[in-house]
Amino acid sequence: MPESQATAAFIWPVRVYWEDTDAGGIVFYANYLKFFERARTEWLRALGVEQQALRQSTGGMFVVSQATLRYLRPARLDDELQVSAQLIHCGRSSLHIAQQARLKDCDTILCEATMRIGWVDQRLKPARIPDSVLQRLQARP
Amino acid sequence: MPESQATAAFIWPVRVYWEDTDAGGIVFYANYLKFFERARTEWLRALGVEQQALRQSTGGMFVVSQATLRYLRPARLDDELQVSAQLIHCGRSSLHIAQQARLKDCDTILCEATMRIGWVDQRLKPARIPDSVLQRLQARP
Amino acid sequence: MPESQATAAFIWPVRVYWEDTDAGGIVFYANYLKFFERARTEWLRALGVEQQALRQSTGGMFVVSQATLRYLRPARLDDELQVSAQLIHCGRSSLHIAQQARLKDCDTILCEATMRIGWVDQRLKPARIPDSVLQRLQARP
Amino acid sequence: MPESQATAAFIWPVRVYWEDTDAGGIVFYANYLKFFERARTEWLRALGVEQQALRQSTGGMFVVSQATLRYLRPARLDDELQVSAQLIHCGRSSLHIAQQARLKDCDTILCEATMRIGWVDQRLKPARIPDSVLQRLQARP
Repeated sequence: MPESQATAAFIWPVRVYWEDTDAGGIVFYANYLKFFERARTEWLRALGVEQQALRQSTGGMFVVSQATLRYLRPARLDDELQVSAQLIHCGRSSLHIAQQARLKDCDTILCEATMRIGWVDQRLKPARIPDSVLQRLQARP
Repeated sequence: MPESQATAAFIWPVRVYWEDTDAGGIVFYANYLKFFERARTEWLRALGVEQQALRQSTGGMFVVSQATLRYLRPARLDDELQVSAQLIHCGRSSLHIAQQARLKDCDTILCEATMRIGWVDQRLKPARIPDSVLQRLQARP
Repeated sequence: MPESQATAAFIWPVRVYWEDTDAGGIVFYANYLKFFERARTEWLRALGVEQQALRQSTGGMFVVSQATLRYLRPARLDDELQVSAQLIHCGRSSLHIAQQARLKDCDTILCEATMRIGWVDQRLKPARIPDSVLQRLQARP
Repeated sequence: MPESQATAAFIWPVRVYWEDTDAGGIVFYANYLKFFERARTEWLRALGVEQQALRQSTGGMFVVSQATLRYLRPARLDDELQVSAQLIHCGRSSLHIAQQARLKDCDTILCEATMRIGWVDQRLKPARIPDSVLQRLQARP
């Protein structure tokens, strides 16, 4: 899937709770990685890919191999965010996914990221993404 | 509000993500405190109590003063939980709330807790819960 | 080991970082469970019990089955805490451990807890604590 | 401070606890941001910069504005890590810091990162780093 065929962005709502904030009064920056992962997980689930079931059947799993994050504006307790996941490139053993967190009903981007996700086998060695998963990723309109 | 007048339980769905698990393959036990807090926050929100707005207007906030937790069964990645919050007692300066986490569509309790929540003022000193909040808590059918 | 034979408390230093705080400006209450676990882990390590090695050799592990926590005073960013773990009772399949978090060089208790820890086998079923571990726990002066 | 004058790396030990791991049996990747922040905080402290005191006196604080992470090998429960922080560039309103996490006594890099840290004032607007802090950063041998 060349970059020009990037799929539409999947959107997942995230509410900010006390657990997400720090003493700066804002969302602790490491927690955007959690928000982005929730969006990726739900995007995969929407495609029919359940990671726990997949791990039980194949022994393998996706792991993050690279992350690039830019923090633009802070989010606060009780804020409603919309977190996106968009497949940019799908290789045989890794995915590139572009992600953003915005305030709900607002174009302002709070944080944007590019994530590289690789597949590893039971021994945590890089491996080819299972065909059943690749087919679902590539069938994505 | 005597215990005999305990309100009905509020239910909030929680999905288990990678961030919630530990190397035991199950939800890390400290994270049930996060799940319980999400349920309490959404229960308060359903009553019209927004904590961030309340803090800005009063300087005060709710804090947990006691927690008692029993862990009965483990939850795993991708599990869907139903987390409850039930007001057991509402005093002038503290609340007792009973909470449970169950697997969705299943009576099995994974974790149950009793939480004592107190109100503190801007200097973090115990104080009376604002009347506007008490009224909403007591109006609860 | 009857309660009267409770062992001396093991002390472990914990520094408060941004990750530990919340928008209330204080340590997020769930994180005391992390601090207490670090102290228990280092107490076990001091007794010669390495949990990762133990899991690889036996398939089993300790899990928390009950926790009772009282929050007395808040801790803040950069605070140095002293976190204790004291074995109160050692049964065949579970331990009771009393724990406290204090400010360094200060008698003021911030949070105190009683934890019940059980052993589970590879299928997460309650089981007897391995003899090699029990011996180390009971040999504790 | 041009890049050619980059300072020596500051090293901080980090132990992996249950709280740091996920169901993949390894350290959850978001948690390296916590490890890196602990090392930066201790590096600043070693230079005489206490963030909580600084915030009380100036109202401002450091925030992460960019993070680039590469995950090379996994860490596991009980592993001892050495986490470095090395000032690469010090501007008037931001710092670039290179960071690595290695297994103790081992050259193998587990995760490496470049962090851009900016100073913000009380309203969270970008601002010049306080002179007292800059002097300490630039005096670094």
